[in-house]
Amino acid sequence: MDQKGLLVVISGPSGAGKGTICKALLQENDFWLSVSATTRQPRNGEVDGVNYYFLTKEDFEEKISKNDFLEYAEVYGNYYGTPKSKALEAINNGNDVILEIDIQGALKVKETYPEGVFIFILPPSMEELKQRIINRGSETPESLMTRFKSAYKEINYVSKYNYAVVNDTVEEAVKKIQGIMVAERCRVDRVKEKILDSKEGIIHEQLYD
Amino acid sequence: MDQKGLLVVISGPSGAGKGTICKALLQENDFWLSVSATTRQPRNGEVDGVNYYFLTKEDFEEKISKNDFLEYAEVYGNYYGTPKSKALEAINNGNDVILEIDIQGALKVKETYPEGVFIFILPPSMEELKQRIINRGSETPESLMTRFKSAYKEINYVSKYNYAVVNDTVEEAVKKIQGIMVAERCRVDRVKEKILDSKEGIIHEQLYD
Repeated sequence: MDQKGLLVVISGPSGAGKGTICKALLQENDFWLSVSATTRQPRNGEVDGVNYYFLTKEDFEEKISKNDFLEYAEVYGNYYGTPKSKALEAINNGNDVILEIDIQGALKVKETYPEGVFIFILPPSMEELKQRIINRGSETPESLMTRFKSAYKEINYVSKYNYAVVNDTVEEAVKKIQGIMVAERCRVDRVKEKILDSKEGIIHEQLYD
Repeated sequence: MDQKGLLVVISGPSGAGKGTICKALLQENDFWLSVSATTRQPRNGEVDGVNYYFLTKEDFEEKISKNDFLEYAEVYGNYYGTPKSKALEAINNGNDVILEIDIQGALKVKETYPEGVFIFILPPSMEELKQRIINRGSETPESLMTRFKSAYKEINYVSKYNYAVVNDTVEEAVKKIQGIMVAERCRVDRVKEKILDSKEGIIHEQLYD
């Protein structure tokens, strides 16, 4: 049966390895790739519509007011955002869309597109996360504690997501995400209407043809 | 991280092929097999605790009153049921449990164990289901219509399930169910506590050790 694509949101605390996982996923699965919009100046060799959609501040803010971003953020005075209409068009055409995004961005996407598949990537272990934080080289016990608290606070956001995938190995994490995608395509919430419509079609045909 | 097993309930209308799918799943995955209880007499060669738990009517009804069945039904004067305590013990020990069961039974299991994974098996197409019903050889258009209505009514129950898997080929259906199991093990609802507990453990250790 024809089916909408999935919006797969790969998110989680920094250092969990979401970038590596996304690259590996893109090599194995056929995703439609979202191109971000930004108001920053293009750098040498960057092509509009390929690397980014380069917009003026006015155009970007007009799109904000029209609710045309799945999420956006302002970073060092420049806007960055994920255009909504093109992503939804791809999804409606049956393409899966992948977004690699930080926790704040993911929570905004969840507000605008709750039917997305929200996957939280966890570091291999809390011990490993602790080591990574220690290895960053904070000097005082106080600053170490501040970093801990911040990372631990981020992990609390796992409860806002649908799935948690521990990044033990990239290969295993990718397999799990592929399993999640298979499962999501079978979710009754997503396919119920198709099944019942198809059923009604046959009843109708049988009764009236 | 240690995790409970899954109760995987394979259900759906008769003729959808759930039995074949379960057999194939059992060959590939390591499930704990539930032994049903019954009040019917053992047949030649049937062993208590292997083929069935053979109970007296009194014992069975006592277990009913103690809510010790995931589901039970009376068929031609005999009780049949799925003992609850042994299945839950297996699940708590991290074993996955599979139940192949009709729609009425599955809905009862959902009441007693809502955290189960409820999978509705659909025939390859509604056209195919129609053909199967026609091929059963009902004579009159009226009885044909009655059969249609019954099968179609059964399909409405799909909305009570978590997943719908179309039985195009057994191989594909098994892959989908395996994907569903991978996904369910990553569901935040199932792993949230472990993640947050593990996090608290480290904070505690860091603060007080």
